[in-house]
Amino acid sequence: MQRATPQEFSRVLSSMCTEPHPDARAAAERFLATNPGDPGTYETIADIEHEVVAQLGEMVSLPEPAGYVTSGGSEANIQALRIARNRADTDEPNVVAPTSAHFSFHKAAGMLGLELRTAPLDDEYRANTTAMVELADEDTVAVVGVAGTTEHGRVDPIPEIAAIAEEVGALCHIDAAWGGFHLPFTDHEWDFADAPIDTMTIDPHKLGRAVVPAGGLLARSDELLDALAVETPYLESRSQATLTGTRSGAGVASARAALDALWPGGYRDQAERGQANADWLAAALEDRGCSVVDPELPLVAAEVPEKTFEALREMDWRISRTGNGALRVVCMPHVTRETLQAFVDDLDRQE
Amino acid sequence: MQRATPQEFSRVLSSMCTEPHPDARAAAERFLATNPGDPGTYETIADIEHEVVAQLGEMVSLPEPAGYVTSGGSEANIQALRIARNRADTDEPNVVAPTSAHFSFHKAAGMLGLELRTAPLDDEYRANTTAMVELADEDTVAVVGVAGTTEHGRVDPIPEIAAIAEEVGALCHIDAAWGGFHLPFTDHEWDFADAPIDTMTIDPHKLGRAVVPAGGLLARSDELLDALAVETPYLESRSQATLTGTRSGAGVASARAALDALWPGGYRDQAERGQANADWLAAALEDRGCSVVDPELPLVAAEVPEKTFEALREMDWRISRTGNGALRVVCMPHVTRETLQAFVDDLDRQE
Repeated sequence: MQRATPQEFSRVLSSMCTEPHPDARAAAERFLATNPGDPGTYETIADIEHEVVAQLGEMVSLPEPAGYVTSGGSEANIQALRIARNRADTDEPNVVAPTSAHFSFHKAAGMLGLELRTAPLDDEYRANTTAMVELADEDTVAVVGVAGTTEHGRVDPIPEIAAIAEEVGALCHIDAAWGGFHLPFTDHEWDFADAPIDTMTIDPHKLGRAVVPAGGLLARSDELLDALAVETPYLESRSQATLTGTRSGAGVASARAALDALWPGGYRDQAERGQANADWLAAALEDRGCSVVDPELPLVAAEVPEKTFEALREMDWRISRTGNGALRVVCMPHVTRETLQAFVDDLDRQE
Repeated sequence: MQRATPQEFSRVLSSMCTEPHPDARAAAERFLATNPGDPGTYETIADIEHEVVAQLGEMVSLPEPAGYVTSGGSEANIQALRIARNRADTDEPNVVAPTSAHFSFHKAAGMLGLELRTAPLDDEYRANTTAMVELADEDTVAVVGVAGTTEHGRVDPIPEIAAIAEEVGALCHIDAAWGGFHLPFTDHEWDFADAPIDTMTIDPHKLGRAVVPAGGLLARSDELLDALAVETPYLESRSQATLTGTRSGAGVASARAALDALWPGGYRDQAERGQANADWLAAALEDRGCSVVDPELPLVAAEVPEKTFEALREMDWRISRTGNGALRVVCMPHVTRETLQAFVDDLDRQE
């Protein structure tokens, strides 16, 4: 393995993952060979997983959380819809979500045989709840809101979305995979204290600074998770609610270490730095005549000419686009002001 | 993270995972913060993944393999059935598998809306293919065989199972999650050279000695994987066939390092040692009057009294049972002759 070097994060502006916290890395290395998917055999790591779930519950105002550490946000979103489908009594189940919902919801709908009904966004890139009301009916098994959208970092009106779910007897699932470690330090209404939410995705391996794989699925009660249980002969434990079976203890242990190190003060500092950097970049791009979506969370979307975008990629900036082609920069903890200054300098050289 | 110690493997006789190879551990640590699920951003690890798939293809006699490194055998089995379902043209899809198939097939069937039809085993704990023929029909989308069953380590008659699949126009999926790194050194007929197999599960993080998560899904052609593609806006790449989205580069890099270090000589030695240990344990248990299933692969199932089983668990032996209650010992690389001698000595103290 001498020849290959790991990707450096210094020019990565597109990823929702980041450099893990040093404590998270060390914990991952210690627990590389454990499997929380077999808690009867690997007791220590299973206990640590319970602690991670409890801490995530504290972050989202859910005093007695159920849940587990998933392989990532995709698994958590798939599992949330699977809970909703398994509990519902309909032959033609559907899910209502905004068009800003992550592509894992499309994957989940395809796998689970759910019709995915997507509502347009309002002028502020948030879910249009009037449209969601119209889409929801007695066959709706889940209504989804996003707290920190992948494209624009916007927070949907979560209390209104939970009310729509309640109205049609569906579960309310909130995808806070990326936003969940930032939102506790904002005024947004997004968590279990703000609305009758049933399940939530919140990923330690994104802004939580754990190592991959450490996603998070939280549920209001154990009874919701029971909808996923599959019997497990020949393990020392009796049943399993996860999607993946064998799982990485490294991700779980690293999540615990990151939470120990950073909750709440470290995450608060990180949130403030990330937001300040996003505001700075947004202003810099506006100064240069770009149309910019105001970064409510630390994510900047701005229209730049195609030629400029390609030239920046040629200079090895790892950048990506929103669905309608805008430049998208995620101000993760590894993205410093110096990095953004260098990026803007390179942008200036193109124009 | 000072207080918790990782599980030691010394008394773990129940797991299909094992101590990773030192090179695998080192590679995992280097690539902890990479994501092969976003190959446009993380190029190096994506290249390494292609190499792992190529090497797995070599192991199973598939010269131009398609596939990827999954989170484990469960994801690979789910994805194989998802390919089969997505390609088939039926409103009432079913899957035919032996009762020895891993519980992930039940999970997959539930998720994907497939009827799982299970065929009984023959007297040798292999799939009864006469029963499978009767279960298969025009709505069958996949016929499953197991090469190294979880309970008894048996290899189903793979060429016959592939013929059944062909007969009804279904895909043939082989689950070699555990057995795949042992079977190349045996006379069994189980791989792509022996039968027209379409997809296979083969996990580096079991006998391959990579770190979790490093499962493997192989497919005869890229076209099969295309049945899984979901569009991925806002990544640098355009579509994604995996279940989990963001994935661990650590697992991928560790699989490459383990294969570099051990294929083929190291795996051959390990296979011989494991088999010799299983044969020794089987003989020792038979000498003590237990009824033992002859270990064709390095896995011993033997009937021991309930009281004895519980007493051994009390002595901190990590052991599990087959579905009908027999003691089940998996002779993984970390299970030495000394360990087994100590286990048998403790058994003797109970009787």
